[in-house]
Amino acid sequence: MPAIIQPAVVGATGYAGFELARLLYRHPRSKKPVLFTRDTDDGLAQLDEVYPHISGNGGFPLQPFEWKALRAQGVDVLFLATPHEVSREWVPEAMRHGVRVVDLSGAWRLLQRESRAVYDFHDGDPAAAEQLTSQAVYGIPELHRERLKTAELVANAGCYSTSIILALAPLIRAGLVDLDHGIVCDSKSGVSGAGKQPTQKTHFIEVAENFSAYSVFNHRHTGEILEQLGLSAEQLIFTPHLLPIPRGILSTIYLRLKSPAEAHDVEACMKTFYASSPWVRIFPAGKLPQIQYSLHSNYCDVGFVLAPDRRRAVIVSCLDNLMKGAAGQAVQNMNVMFGWSEEEGLR
Amino acid sequence: MPAIIQPAVVGATGYAGFELARLLYRHPRSKKPVLFTRDTDDGLAQLDEVYPHISGNGGFPLQPFEWKALRAQGVDVLFLATPHEVSREWVPEAMRHGVRVVDLSGAWRLLQRESRAVYDFHDGDPAAAEQLTSQAVYGIPELHRERLKTAELVANAGCYSTSIILALAPLIRAGLVDLDHGIVCDSKSGVSGAGKQPTQKTHFIEVAENFSAYSVFNHRHTGEILEQLGLSAEQLIFTPHLLPIPRGILSTIYLRLKSPAEAHDVEACMKTFYASSPWVRIFPAGKLPQIQYSLHSNYCDVGFVLAPDRRRAVIVSCLDNLMKGAAGQAVQNMNVMFGWSEEEGLR
Amino acid sequence: MPAIIQPAVVGATGYAGFELARLLYRHPRSKKPVLFTRDTDDGLAQLDEVYPHISGNGGFPLQPFEWKALRAQGVDVLFLATPHEVSREWVPEAMRHGVRVVDLSGAWRLLQRESRAVYDFHDGDPAAAEQLTSQAVYGIPELHRERLKTAELVANAGCYSTSIILALAPLIRAGLVDLDHGIVCDSKSGVSGAGKQPTQKTHFIEVAENFSAYSVFNHRHTGEILEQLGLSAEQLIFTPHLLPIPRGILSTIYLRLKSPAEAHDVEACMKTFYASSPWVRIFPAGKLPQIQYSLHSNYCDVGFVLAPDRRRAVIVSCLDNLMKGAAGQAVQNMNVMFGWSEEEGLR
Amino acid sequence: MPAIIQPAVVGATGYAGFELARLLYRHPRSKKPVLFTRDTDDGLAQLDEVYPHISGNGGFPLQPFEWKALRAQGVDVLFLATPHEVSREWVPEAMRHGVRVVDLSGAWRLLQRESRAVYDFHDGDPAAAEQLTSQAVYGIPELHRERLKTAELVANAGCYSTSIILALAPLIRAGLVDLDHGIVCDSKSGVSGAGKQPTQKTHFIEVAENFSAYSVFNHRHTGEILEQLGLSAEQLIFTPHLLPIPRGILSTIYLRLKSPAEAHDVEACMKTFYASSPWVRIFPAGKLPQIQYSLHSNYCDVGFVLAPDRRRAVIVSCLDNLMKGAAGQAVQNMNVMFGWSEEEGLR
Repeated sequence: MPAIIQPAVVGATGYAGFELARLLYRHPRSKKPVLFTRDTDDGLAQLDEVYPHISGNGGFPLQPFEWKALRAQGVDVLFLATPHEVSREWVPEAMRHGVRVVDLSGAWRLLQRESRAVYDFHDGDPAAAEQLTSQAVYGIPELHRERLKTAELVANAGCYSTSIILALAPLIRAGLVDLDHGIVCDSKSGVSGAGKQPTQKTHFIEVAENFSAYSVFNHRHTGEILEQLGLSAEQLIFTPHLLPIPRGILSTIYLRLKSPAEAHDVEACMKTFYASSPWVRIFPAGKLPQIQYSLHSNYCDVGFVLAPDRRRAVIVSCLDNLMKGAAGQAVQNMNVMFGWSEEEGLR
Repeated sequence: MPAIIQPAVVGATGYAGFELARLLYRHPRSKKPVLFTRDTDDGLAQLDEVYPHISGNGGFPLQPFEWKALRAQGVDVLFLATPHEVSREWVPEAMRHGVRVVDLSGAWRLLQRESRAVYDFHDGDPAAAEQLTSQAVYGIPELHRERLKTAELVANAGCYSTSIILALAPLIRAGLVDLDHGIVCDSKSGVSGAGKQPTQKTHFIEVAENFSAYSVFNHRHTGEILEQLGLSAEQLIFTPHLLPIPRGILSTIYLRLKSPAEAHDVEACMKTFYASSPWVRIFPAGKLPQIQYSLHSNYCDVGFVLAPDRRRAVIVSCLDNLMKGAAGQAVQNMNVMFGWSEEEGLR
Repeated sequence: MPAIIQPAVVGATGYAGFELARLLYRHPRSKKPVLFTRDTDDGLAQLDEVYPHISGNGGFPLQPFEWKALRAQGVDVLFLATPHEVSREWVPEAMRHGVRVVDLSGAWRLLQRESRAVYDFHDGDPAAAEQLTSQAVYGIPELHRERLKTAELVANAGCYSTSIILALAPLIRAGLVDLDHGIVCDSKSGVSGAGKQPTQKTHFIEVAENFSAYSVFNHRHTGEILEQLGLSAEQLIFTPHLLPIPRGILSTIYLRLKSPAEAHDVEACMKTFYASSPWVRIFPAGKLPQIQYSLHSNYCDVGFVLAPDRRRAVIVSCLDNLMKGAAGQAVQNMNVMFGWSEEEGLR
Repeated sequence: MPAIIQPAVVGATGYAGFELARLLYRHPRSKKPVLFTRDTDDGLAQLDEVYPHISGNGGFPLQPFEWKALRAQGVDVLFLATPHEVSREWVPEAMRHGVRVVDLSGAWRLLQRESRAVYDFHDGDPAAAEQLTSQAVYGIPELHRERLKTAELVANAGCYSTSIILALAPLIRAGLVDLDHGIVCDSKSGVSGAGKQPTQKTHFIEVAENFSAYSVFNHRHTGEILEQLGLSAEQLIFTPHLLPIPRGILSTIYLRLKSPAEAHDVEACMKTFYASSPWVRIFPAGKLPQIQYSLHSNYCDVGFVLAPDRRRAVIVSCLDNLMKGAAGQAVQNMNVMFGWSEEEGLR
C-alpha cells in the first residue's frame, strides 16, 4: 500500500476529465496529476485556458501525450477520459507498458462478445479484445471491491448503469425480485452526460424548457446493466431521458417482489448490503432521494416505496453523473486499487 | 347551436384560470368573459394588475362573484378554476341556477364512491354528491364527445390523467394490452401544475437544478386514470415527478401486449382511434414526442417504440399542462358542449 | 393597398425564420408563404422535419431557392432570415427582380460607410453598396412609418437595437437627455439570439447556471443604435450579456436629463411619442417591465424610475427577441409596407 | 493565535447559514459548530431533516438557542445568519456576554446614522446603536484586515456590496476615477440571495424564463457601498436584477477615468491592490469573468475592458453570493479574527 502515487489523465478538457483532474489535485495520496492532451486539444498549454474556474491556483499544465513521457514521469495509474474508440486503441498499449488503467469510457465494460455485438462495440481484433476484456474489472467498488485491489484494467462503470445497478443489486442478489415479470428503469440525466462537444442535441434552445426520452430499447449502457445484474434482455427495460439541468441522474425503477414483503425488511436488505460502503446512502422506507441531495458529492442515494399490495416496489436512485457516475467513482476505484480508504480525497 | 355565448371564469388569477381567460378573450364564439374574483383575490379590479403581460389590451375587469351578477349578465357557462373544495361547494348551487359548468378541479371526476374515499374526496352529503357525480361528464372530448354535447357539469380531466388516458385508451379498448401484467406510467410535469401559491415545494431553489418523484402510489389523479381506463389499482402504477421547467408534461408508459405485434399495426390502432380528433397527434412508430413540441398548443402528442420482442412497448405522451392539461381542454370541452368545431379558438 | 399578398421566406429553419413562417401562416392578409431552403438545408422537404411542433397542420413544404420559382409564384415580398453575408449577396439581385425585401440580417442597417467600416460590414463593391444602402429603410415602424410604406428594401432592426432605440428615442428627440454625459445600455438577452448553429457558446452546460458579458465596446449592433439615435460613439456604451433563458431581452439604460424633471412629465413624453404605436407599452412611472410580460408577443415594454435628484433616470425596456426583436417586427414592417394595420396578424 | 476554536451558528436552516455550517464542519481549525435553532425552526433536531444533502455524515444536531448553552459550550465566535431585526436585538446581548460575533445580516454595516435612516435601519435606542456601530468592523478582509484581527463585532459585507466594492476599491483609492461623472453598477444575482422563505417573488414560475430589475434607487446595500467607497449618493447608481439561476452574482460597472490610461496600468493597479489577497482574482485586461467560474468557491473575480478612448471602462465582477457573498466571507473573516491564513478551510 503506497503512501502516495503519480496519476495521469488523458482527456482533462472534457467534463468528466476536468472533474477528475480537480479531484486528483486535492487528493491527499496523489501527486499533482500529469495532464495529457490529445491531438484534438490543439495547442493548449494550461487547463485553465479552457476552465478559468481553476485559474489562480498555480497552474494545471498540459502536455502532449507520449508513452515515453508517461514512463519518464513514473505514472502509476492512467485515467482515460476519452471516447471509447480511443480507449480501445490505447489500453492494449498501456497494458504492454505495465501501467494500470482506469478507463472512463465504455470500451471494456462488456464481458460477453454477444453483448458487445448488440451494444455496439465491434471488436477489431476479437481474440485480443477477448483477452483484455477478461482482465478488465467492472469499476463499481460496491460490487467488485476484491478484484479491484489487483486490477490492471478498470472499466469505470457508466453513469446510468451505476444508478441502476446499485439500486437493484441488493434485492436481486437476495433473490427477492420476480425477474420474469420484468424490471422497468426509467432514468433521467442532466446534460453533462452528453459530453462537451457542441451538437444540436446539447444546444441550449433544444434542451431548456424541454424534456425527452431517447435511445429507447437500444442505449449502450443496457448491456453492462444486464451483465452486472445477471439479467437477460427480456428482463429489463431501460429508458434514458434528457433533463434540462447541467448534472445529476435520477432513476425510477419498477419491480415486483416474488412475495409480499414488509418495508422494513426491504430497507434492511439494502442497508445490510451496503453496510461497509460509505458512498451509498439508503433512505428510510417511504422517503425518496432527489437529485439535489447528491450533487457535487460521490454519493449514490437510494430510496423506495412499497405499494399497498406489498409486492410492487418503486425504487428511486440518484447520483451526480460526473461524480459517482464518472470521476468520483474513478477516484473511488483508484482508492481501492491502492489499498486506501474509499473516502480518501472524496469528502 | 348558438353563434356566440357568454362565459364566466372564477379563479382567473391562477395559472390555469389566466390561460383560460386569455383563450376566451380571443375565442370567436365567446363574448368577453366575465371574470369573477373570490374572497382570496382581495381588492383586485383588473386582471393585468396580477399579469402585466396582458396590459394595454383594453382591460380585463374583475368583479366579485355573486349568483345575482351571474344571472344578470346572462352567463351560459361557468368555468371554475378553483380548489376542489370550492368546486364541491359551488357546483350544486350552479346546478340549481341552471348554469352549465366546466370545473377544472378534481371535485367531480371520480364516478365511484370507493374511488373518492381512496383518492381523498370526502363527500359531505353523500347522497347529493352521488347524484351530481352521476350527472358529471368526464371532460376529455376524445372519449366522451357525445355525452359532452348535453352535459350540464363537465369535470375537466386532470393534466397527468389526460396524458396517460389518451396514450393508453386506443390499445386498451382494442384489447391489445396484457392488463394483468401491469402498466407503469412514469410521468414528469413542469411546475405550473403545482399552482400559484408559493410553497417550499415551488421555491425556485428547491426546483431548479433538481428533479424528484412524489406522491408515489397515492397521487390523486390515479383514481380517474383507473376509472377512465377500466383498470383496477393493481393494474397500473402512476409515479409523478417534478421537472425544473415552467410547463409541460411527458409520460413514459410501459406495457406488455397480449401477443407480439407489428409497429405499424400499433400505430394504425392509435391513428384510427383518433382519426376525428384534431388535438391528438400520433407520431410515426419509433419517433417520440418531446415536451417542446406541444408547448403553448392544445395538442396531446403520442409516440411509441416496440421492443425487439414486439411485445413490450414504451409509449411517450406529451402535452402542455396548462393547455390540453387544463385551460385548452376546458375550451375544447366548451366547443363540444355548444356544438362547434373542437378547434374553435384554439389555433 | 392589396387585400392579400404572397410572401416568401429564406431561412425558415433558423429560430427567427421559423417564428416568421408561423406568423405568416396565420396572417389574414398572407397567402401560405413560400418557404425556400438554402444549400445548407440539404434535402429537407417539410419544415416539420426540423420542427415537429408544427406537424399535423397540413404541411409546411420547403423548396430550393430559385429566382425563377420566386417570380413564377408571384412573390410580393421576400423575407431573408439569413446571415448578413448571404443578404449582402442576394439583395442586389432581388432589387433587380423588382421584389420588395425585408432583410432580418444586419447587412443593410448602417447608413454611413464609416459605421460599416467600424462595425464590420466590409463593402465588396462600395459604390453599389452605397447606393442600395441609401434605398434601405431601417425597419422600426415606430420611427420610420412613412418611409416604410414605399420601401423596396427594409433593413429589419436588430433585437438589442430595438429594445434600446425604442426606449431612448422619445427623450432624446425631445431634447431632454444630457448626451455629453453619456448613456449606458446594459442589455441582457436569451440564447435564441445567438442562432441555431451549435457552438461552444450555446452549449447547454456553458449557458445554464451562468451569466456573462460579451463583445464589450465592439458589438455589431452598436452602429445602428448610434445612427438611429443620432449619437457619437463616445455618447453611448452598449454591453450585451447572455441570459440562461431561451428568449427575451431586457435593457437597463442609464442616462442624465439636462435638467431635473417630474416623473409624470417623463412618462407623458414617452406616451405621447408612442400614442399611435400599438406595439410599445409605456409603464406608469416607477413600474418596470419584466421579460416574462412580453414573451411570445410583439410588444416592446418600457418603464423607468427617476432618482431622488430627478435628473438621473433608469429606463428598463423588454421585448421578445424573436418577435419584436426579429420576426414580429418583420411582420409589422410588412403590414406598414402594404398599408394594413400594424396589428394585423400579430395578436 | 489559537490552534482551534469553537464556533456557533444561529440560522443554519437558511441558505447562507447552511453553507456556513458545512464550511465550519470541515474547517481544520474549527470544532464541530454548535448549531442553534430559533423559534421559527420548530421542533427540528437535526439539520439533515431540512437538508438531506448532508445525511450519512454522523449528524448535524440542532439545539434551541440559549445564552447559557452558549457559555457552557465555550463558544468563541457566534455567527448570526438571521434577519437584521434579530441581529439588532441579539448582538448587544452577545457583546455583554463577551462573545465575538460575525453577523451576516445588514444590521451593523452602516456607520453613519444618516445612512441608516435612508437605508432603512431605524435605531430603537439610537445612543446604544451608535456605540455598537462604532465598534463594528465591516467584514471584507481585503479592505479591513487589520481591524478585523481584534474585532468583537464583524458586520459581514452584503453580497452585492462585496462584488461592487472589491471591483471599485483599487481604482477609486488610487484616485483614478472621475467620481463626479458618476458610476453605474448594474448587478445581477441568483435567487438564493432572496432567502429560503417562499414568496411570490421566489416562486419558480415567476423567476424561470424571466429576468427583472428591482429596488431601483433604493436597495438596502446602496448605503454600505457608498460608505465603504467614500462616495455620495449622487456618485453611484446601483441597480439589482434577479437572474433565473440558484446562485452567483455578476456586476457590470461603468466608470470614467480622470484621464486616459493604458489597460496594463489599470490591470497593474488592481493586481497590486490585491497582491496579498488570495480570494480576489484579477483577469488580464480584456478578459471577463463569468458567473460559472467562481461558483462554489470563495473567489471574487474581476476583469475589465477599456473603451477605445481609454477613458471609459467597463468592469465585470463575479462571485458566489452564498460563498464570498456570505458564508465563505464569514469564514474568511473568522480566519483573520483568529490569526490564521485567509485560505484556511476554504479550498
